[in-house]
Amino acid sequence: MQDHLLSELGQQLRVDSVRAAAAAGSGHPTSSMSAADLMAVLLANHLRYDFEQPGHPGNDHLVFSKGHASPLLYSLFKAAGAISDEELLTFRKLGSRLEGHPTPRLPWVDVATGSLGQGLPVGVGLALARKRLEKLDRADSRVWVLCGDSELAEGSVWEAAEHACYEHLDNLIAIIDVNRLGQRGPTRHEWDLGAYARRFHAFGWHTIEIEGHDPTAIDRAYGEAASTIGRPTAIIARTVKGRGVASVENREGLHGKPLPDAEEAIAELGGPREMAVPVLGPPEVSVAQRSREGSLSLPRFEPGEDVATRDAFGQALAALGSARGDVVVLDGEVGDSTRAELFAKEHPERYFECFIAEQQLVAAAVGIQARGWTPYASTFAAFLTRAYDFVRMAAVSRADLNLVGSHAGVAIGEDGPSQMGLEDLAAFRAVHGSTVLYPCDANQTAHLTAAMAEGSGIRYLRTTRGKTPVLYPASESFPIGGSKLVRATDEDRVTIVAAGVTVHEAIAAADRLAEEGIPARVIDLYSVKPVDARTLREAAELTGGLVTVEDHHPEGGLGDAVLEAFGDGSPASRTIRLAVRDMPVSATPAQQLTAAGIDAEAIAAAARQLAGPAR
Amino acid sequence: MQDHLLSELGQQLRVDSVRAAAAAGSGHPTSSMSAADLMAVLLANHLRYDFEQPGHPGNDHLVFSKGHASPLLYSLFKAAGAISDEELLTFRKLGSRLEGHPTPRLPWVDVATGSLGQGLPVGVGLALARKRLEKLDRADSRVWVLCGDSELAEGSVWEAAEHACYEHLDNLIAIIDVNRLGQRGPTRHEWDLGAYARRFHAFGWHTIEIEGHDPTAIDRAYGEAASTIGRPTAIIARTVKGRGVASVENREGLHGKPLPDAEEAIAELGGPREMAVPVLGPPEVSVAQRSREGSLSLPRFEPGEDVATRDAFGQALAALGSARGDVVVLDGEVGDSTRAELFAKEHPERYFECFIAEQQLVAAAVGIQARGWTPYASTFAAFLTRAYDFVRMAAVSRADLNLVGSHAGVAIGEDGPSQMGLEDLAAFRAVHGSTVLYPCDANQTAHLTAAMAEGSGIRYLRTTRGKTPVLYPASESFPIGGSKLVRATDEDRVTIVAAGVTVHEAIAAADRLAEEGIPARVIDLYSVKPVDARTLREAAELTGGLVTVEDHHPEGGLGDAVLEAFGDGSPASRTIRLAVRDMPVSATPAQQLTAAGIDAEAIAAAARQLAGPAR
Repeated sequence: MQDHLLSELGQQLRVDSVRAAAAAGSGHPTSSMSAADLMAVLLANHLRYDFEQPGHPGNDHLVFSKGHASPLLYSLFKAAGAISDEELLTFRKLGSRLEGHPTPRLPWVDVATGSLGQGLPVGVGLALARKRLEKLDRADSRVWVLCGDSELAEGSVWEAAEHACYEHLDNLIAIIDVNRLGQRGPTRHEWDLGAYARRFHAFGWHTIEIEGHDPTAIDRAYGEAASTIGRPTAIIARTVKGRGVASVENREGLHGKPLPDAEEAIAELGGPREMAVPVLGPPEVSVAQRSREGSLSLPRFEPGEDVATRDAFGQALAALGSARGDVVVLDGEVGDSTRAELFAKEHPERYFECFIAEQQLVAAAVGIQARGWTPYASTFAAFLTRAYDFVRMAAVSRADLNLVGSHAGVAIGEDGPSQMGLEDLAAFRAVHGSTVLYPCDANQTAHLTAAMAEGSGIRYLRTTRGKTPVLYPASESFPIGGSKLVRATDEDRVTIVAAGVTVHEAIAAADRLAEEGIPARVIDLYSVKPVDARTLREAAELTGGLVTVEDHHPEGGLGDAVLEAFGDGSPASRTIRLAVRDMPVSATPAQQLTAAGIDAEAIAAAARQLAGPAR
Repeated sequence: MQDHLLSELGQQLRVDSVRAAAAAGSGHPTSSMSAADLMAVLLANHLRYDFEQPGHPGNDHLVFSKGHASPLLYSLFKAAGAISDEELLTFRKLGSRLEGHPTPRLPWVDVATGSLGQGLPVGVGLALARKRLEKLDRADSRVWVLCGDSELAEGSVWEAAEHACYEHLDNLIAIIDVNRLGQRGPTRHEWDLGAYARRFHAFGWHTIEIEGHDPTAIDRAYGEAASTIGRPTAIIARTVKGRGVASVENREGLHGKPLPDAEEAIAELGGPREMAVPVLGPPEVSVAQRSREGSLSLPRFEPGEDVATRDAFGQALAALGSARGDVVVLDGEVGDSTRAELFAKEHPERYFECFIAEQQLVAAAVGIQARGWTPYASTFAAFLTRAYDFVRMAAVSRADLNLVGSHAGVAIGEDGPSQMGLEDLAAFRAVHGSTVLYPCDANQTAHLTAAMAEGSGIRYLRTTRGKTPVLYPASESFPIGGSKLVRATDEDRVTIVAAGVTVHEAIAAADRLAEEGIPARVIDLYSVKPVDARTLREAAELTGGLVTVEDHHPEGGLGDAVLEAFGDGSPASRTIRLAVRDMPVSATPAQQLTAAGIDAEAIAAAARQLAGPAR
């Protein structure tokens, strides 16, 4: 498309952004107007995308990391003929798929954005999937990411920059819309394009600085980026927020607001246009195949054997990788500890080292799953908290994602509280649509490791550092949402609900209680979410009291999950909760369980209190 | 100290690190050995610190961002005469204050480390407090941060780099121990010192590359750093992991393990030494005074008036800043939305703009509180999840910290789920020793904003975007751990427990129920943690059933907090929980409450179910 038409298209995108925000009564038109020319040139001359076939393997990807510029994105979709003008004006209204910030409810949106600094990290995941997993050349399919300048303050952007350079992602192009203004005022670097260029260049990127409202310069920059080999490109474009409407151009205090006078603004922009852009079609490419049909041969452990659940996880993951060609593993530089390295040894081509950058670890996994792969990302449970905003946003992205946190709880022993995951169950339970699993033995871990690949949403598996005895035969099944009755008779007078390491303490407690004439039921609640409400209610009804015991802080974990089963008005049960209430210090694993009051002795004492004296 | 003595001291630190790890049977001696010469020269020639007066205002700060090198830190303390050799050998044992990773249980440790990439961000906070709040010159007190090379992959390090340069923190010196090896293998850049230097330089730092086992070079670098004006310095030192013991030098697979043969290693290092280092004393400085004694004049709101709780927060914060000179406010580039900017207008010298970098926002606050100031850090509730690992570690640091999350819940309306805090109550409740507050009206917000400054630990306040009617007179008091009975009679047949926006829905529901002949109690549970267990139990006993209703996902929030009150074996109550169970989309605030099933109608329906037919 020729320059004067590109300028016209830019104006159309501005007008439509203004109209959409005016119809909604909210939104971010000025942030859309700054990037309108950048996106006009991309849509007309460089993006290769079949909007009628969003699943076409040769399609490029367009990620709006500055998700608040959604009016611009939707205006692009309209210009491409993907949505009607009528739909454009449903922006932000109940029932519309044109939400305030983009989500994959729209078939042309890979991932949700709106929490700044996440689009580029996820774009790295998409580019990695395209290049390393699907074996596409940079010319086959590109990942274009529109970033704001404000969001470059997020460290996650620099984790992404490092990762992209390390993996030589020349199919990744970041377009930085340097409009100088954040939400509340100027950015740190305002229009100092060199400040951004120096940073990206130091991180190994090719950089191009341009005037972001000059179609010729933009077009040339995209061409240069597309022909750059061996490294990603950042195009750093000087733009003006609110460009095209004098009353809002480059002015503070107008972020996230419709234009004061939309009609006047539209007139100043030359009125509505109805340009339809013939978007370039995707190339016919053949992507590397992946099979999900292999036969799974999980590791088998003998009851009584001592095996760490993290070891069982690593072995099961390697076996799963042999059965399923779509399984991909990402490590946060602790693969020797999480045992993810057992997968790496057998399937190095599907193993990605993300180094100590947990946000990027999760973001890369989100990008990879958006391409239909089945990623497992693992690090210490404690350090997954570093990526909590990415997990939260992954749920908004409707991502199918497996996350595994090792070294959970005080049971790790001497390393101390900085390395103990004691908030992870709470954090993952609170994520929409999540699954939270916490196995206590090796066979259970192996089964759950495989089962989580079949689920949907965010699936979290919590593993333990030290060895625990194998309780269950390898043939046992462990459905998600289920539980196991480890000890049960019709005479049980109290129920102990445990998971992971505390199952073994609960069994020891039940043995002591039995000797005292207090039969106690033990439930292994390996599926913390969804929770087996029926088994819990039956046990409560029969025994009259529950002791919950967890290697986690008292809030948001197992104890809360158990009570959730009674949150529909069901008759409730008397309950005593045991959990880690003090700040732990360094000590041996056994000392830790005792100090936290979650060992067999503490469980037995609580159970006695609920059950009353032996009969 | 002369070079040959410095080398001897380096060997002593290695020997003591090896001995401590051997005595513990765990720990990270090889990571300590790489940095031993760097720390020997610092302790002997540059650090100014009175170990008998850790509170001396002229003391330097030494932060071990690579907290796993704790054996080295404790060996330094021994060389300085702060701890005995006997205590050194209690490393990692129950009862010892020499934990696996350093914590402020030791008076010479400002903040806990062990989650990598946090020491430098917190160091920025310390340097900021020294320079901007205490008005010290760079020569008065310096902040030295020892970083590993692996942890430079964390984006938080680059948030810190950006912040430090922006604030011209020439009192901050980062010492990068480039020992080439991470936990599971080589780092991305191995011994490419230039890769790190280019990155720091691009972020505006002065950089010095040295051989990290050459005392002369180290000494010169510290001198150069100390005399650099206007910007921070990064000293990038090439070192060898396990340096000094041939069998472990520069070898993979030995991270985090005691040396295979400690006795032989100690012999190879020349045996134990007993050098006592006369550490330079701190200068006598006078730090800017701060008063906590002013009289507080909180804003007052008229019952019935419509005021957003975020507005009340901003006004109360500004008033608190006038009464207390120790109150400091940090913003994540949303001060116009959170209303923290109201503080900025009155107290600009105690207001820090951290831009869109939530990890650095919280880290800076942690550093600032370590100097005895009272920071409030605020952004959207949704985006505080970005800093969750920093909040978790702040608790390990025993930090006293106020965090405020605005725009909570679906009640924000059109912006959609990426901007809604729906996991924040769960996340903050699970933090050890935390306080979680969620006010429903302006006067309550003002009181709680002031009250949280008096507390300890991590205090979290959740505010709402839209306006809500003022319920309480300005004279009312709202103790932390309390609640308010908004509606109560002796005939109540059901109890509704709400907080924040849902209090207003609960009142509307109670009005409808009253008309139907079902008297309903309404509890405003503004203190979600600690929770007012007595009031909840009394209500349950009297009315027989509880409806909990919250603008939050069902897990870990208000509903779980209420049930916690019955977690000690108390007779439980039948409960129905209302919460945000589906993924929200864009819609008006009122539509959101209805869609989520947390509006007055949904509450009334649940209450009817529990109460049974009207009498």
